[in-house]
Amino acid sequence: MVIQANQYKIITDDTWSASLNRFLQQHPPSSCFILCDENTLQHCLPSLITSCPLLAEAEIIEVEAGEQSKSLEIAAQIWHTLSEAQADRDMLLINLGGGVVTDLGGFCASVYKRGVNFINVPTSLLAMADASVGAKNGIDFAGIKNMIGTFTEPVAVFVNPHFLRTLPQNQIMSGLAEVYKIALVSDRRFWSKLIKQNSQDLPAHISASIVLKNKIVKKDPLDKGLRKILNFGHTAGHALESASFLCNKPLLHGEAVLAGMLMESHLSWQKKMIGKKTLDLITGAFMENFTLPDISLINEADFFRLLQNDKKNKNKQLLFSLLNDIGSCKTNVEVKEPLIKKAFDYYKRQAHDQD
Amino acid sequence: MVIQANQYKIITDDTWSASLNRFLQQHPPSSCFILCDENTLQHCLPSLITSCPLLAEAEIIEVEAGEQSKSLEIAAQIWHTLSEAQADRDMLLINLGGGVVTDLGGFCASVYKRGVNFINVPTSLLAMADASVGAKNGIDFAGIKNMIGTFTEPVAVFVNPHFLRTLPQNQIMSGLAEVYKIALVSDRRFWSKLIKQNSQDLPAHISASIVLKNKIVKKDPLDKGLRKILNFGHTAGHALESASFLCNKPLLHGEAVLAGMLMESHLSWQKKMIGKKTLDLITGAFMENFTLPDISLINEADFFRLLQNDKKNKNKQLLFSLLNDIGSCKTNVEVKEPLIKKAFDYYKRQAHDQD
Repeated sequence: MVIQANQYKIITDDTWSASLNRFLQQHPPSSCFILCDENTLQHCLPSLITSCPLLAEAEIIEVEAGEQSKSLEIAAQIWHTLSEAQADRDMLLINLGGGVVTDLGGFCASVYKRGVNFINVPTSLLAMADASVGAKNGIDFAGIKNMIGTFTEPVAVFVNPHFLRTLPQNQIMSGLAEVYKIALVSDRRFWSKLIKQNSQDLPAHISASIVLKNKIVKKDPLDKGLRKILNFGHTAGHALESASFLCNKPLLHGEAVLAGMLMESHLSWQKKMIGKKTLDLITGAFMENFTLPDISLINEADFFRLLQNDKKNKNKQLLFSLLNDIGSCKTNVEVKEPLIKKAFDYYKRQAHDQD
Repeated sequence: MVIQANQYKIITDDTWSASLNRFLQQHPPSSCFILCDENTLQHCLPSLITSCPLLAEAEIIEVEAGEQSKSLEIAAQIWHTLSEAQADRDMLLINLGGGVVTDLGGFCASVYKRGVNFINVPTSLLAMADASVGAKNGIDFAGIKNMIGTFTEPVAVFVNPHFLRTLPQNQIMSGLAEVYKIALVSDRRFWSKLIKQNSQDLPAHISASIVLKNKIVKKDPLDKGLRKILNFGHTAGHALESASFLCNKPLLHGEAVLAGMLMESHLSWQKKMIGKKTLDLITGAFMENFTLPDISLINEADFFRLLQNDKKNKNKQLLFSLLNDIGSCKTNVEVKEPLIKKAFDYYKRQAHDQD
């Protein structure tokens, strides 16, 4: 499938390598760099180079796997590498990895010499189904996720679901959480399909997610309105994720979003936006299809402090994107701390019950 | 005068404060910050706040005056300040200063939470006549000028020529060099006027420069083609500027550009793009109206190494924007090092003769 995003294409079928080869022939970069982590270096780079022999000459930049690489220090190291190689404005950066690599590499490319071309080759389910569309990039800063970044489109995204074979199961489930999210906020039919199939037929789920997210992003490229529905689960989720680093029990992004979605479904119910039946349906589907991550070590005070720094907040109010229904979401819903505390406790009970 | 840039207005007459007040009333930011250096804090901030009482509550962020503040470390400090103040996406940053402050502040704002609003209030002639239009921002990195940055438009630019009264003469002459540049690359009549009036009637020169530069930038917002004519004097100029830091005899930006323009005029002549008469005319005008900066302490090897890292280079060729005539410029002219060496020596002789 070829999905047309704003100014670039996302290729999700077997034509990806032909398309990448064609791109490299038609737009030969002055120099080419591939950003990987140690996992994609080992498991994905060899097959990428086999598929695209033109990349054999590319310089490899390796960062450590994990969220801690989305830092200003690592970004600075990448800029040093590019600058030492005298990479000019016609260079190309290929980001081969999960969301950490595509977010970090996208940010580095978007500001190096005021912007150079980059291509994303996502290797995790999360990066394929979610980060591949939307043009967001960024690094974490001062303990806040994606605090520094830009909206910049890659020149293309090549999705090769074969890379999923090398992924551990927790990474698959983390990515699947974002697929559930896109269904919950925008497409009830896709949700019904998902809760039946769960992790079966991932390539189809990836394409469906991209198509749904792309529709939303096209209407609101700079995240000024509609697009905030994509933040369902993410207000609580980002705070959980950042807090989990502080207690040295890091959650994967999708795990944090899964917990965040359950909390925010509970908030939707407390705000009388969905009924008890819908809350139970969502909770049941999550309990059946996922292992709810353990957040018992997370410091609640950290969590509430981090919530205050969410990018969506205005005038120090806490604003959430909450569900109206399955397949429908309302943005900018103000929620006070006591309700969030109840949602936090609700989640903890569910996770405890599942144990 | 009100000049319409791509998506924002540049106000260069006495209506600027009424216009700023109106903007603040119509788009009240969730929080407001003013970025200054110690000079603009003392000489410009009080009158800005008198003109715009709404700014009395703004939080002041002060950086040291000088190019060394255009660094990743200072940018990180600014992001920390914003983050500690829980500044959200509806904040506003007002950059009150010369090109260092507007470049640094513009960059910080353009990536903080993926982009927040900023207004530029330029206080130097350089920032008024040149940096006020074009949407470029950036910081220096690894010894290279503006290595990291974005193209992001401010929401408005307010030019108040009264601020020039507080500027030392060398700053005025530095700014005037960029005014001469815009005349040299795009408007022979403006050039003729300039060499007669020199630093008389600066407000008129500022407006004329902005109008000329704006025409060019509108045709090429992302610096892909035509806009490169604005780089006349800057290939050699940036390398001189960076090299001058290494020998601890920092040149002002406009001083480096002045020297760069003379070198590149000599290159234009060596490349047979202008005649000897035109070269002499330009050299004569510069000798009469400016004190040519002393570059005798600059290490030539540094200079040539830094030239290699110019953003305009492609495939490791050295590319210049050179004059075809007074008022006309050609981009992407490849020049080999021996010619640059001759131009470098030519400049040194002129500077020596002027002494």
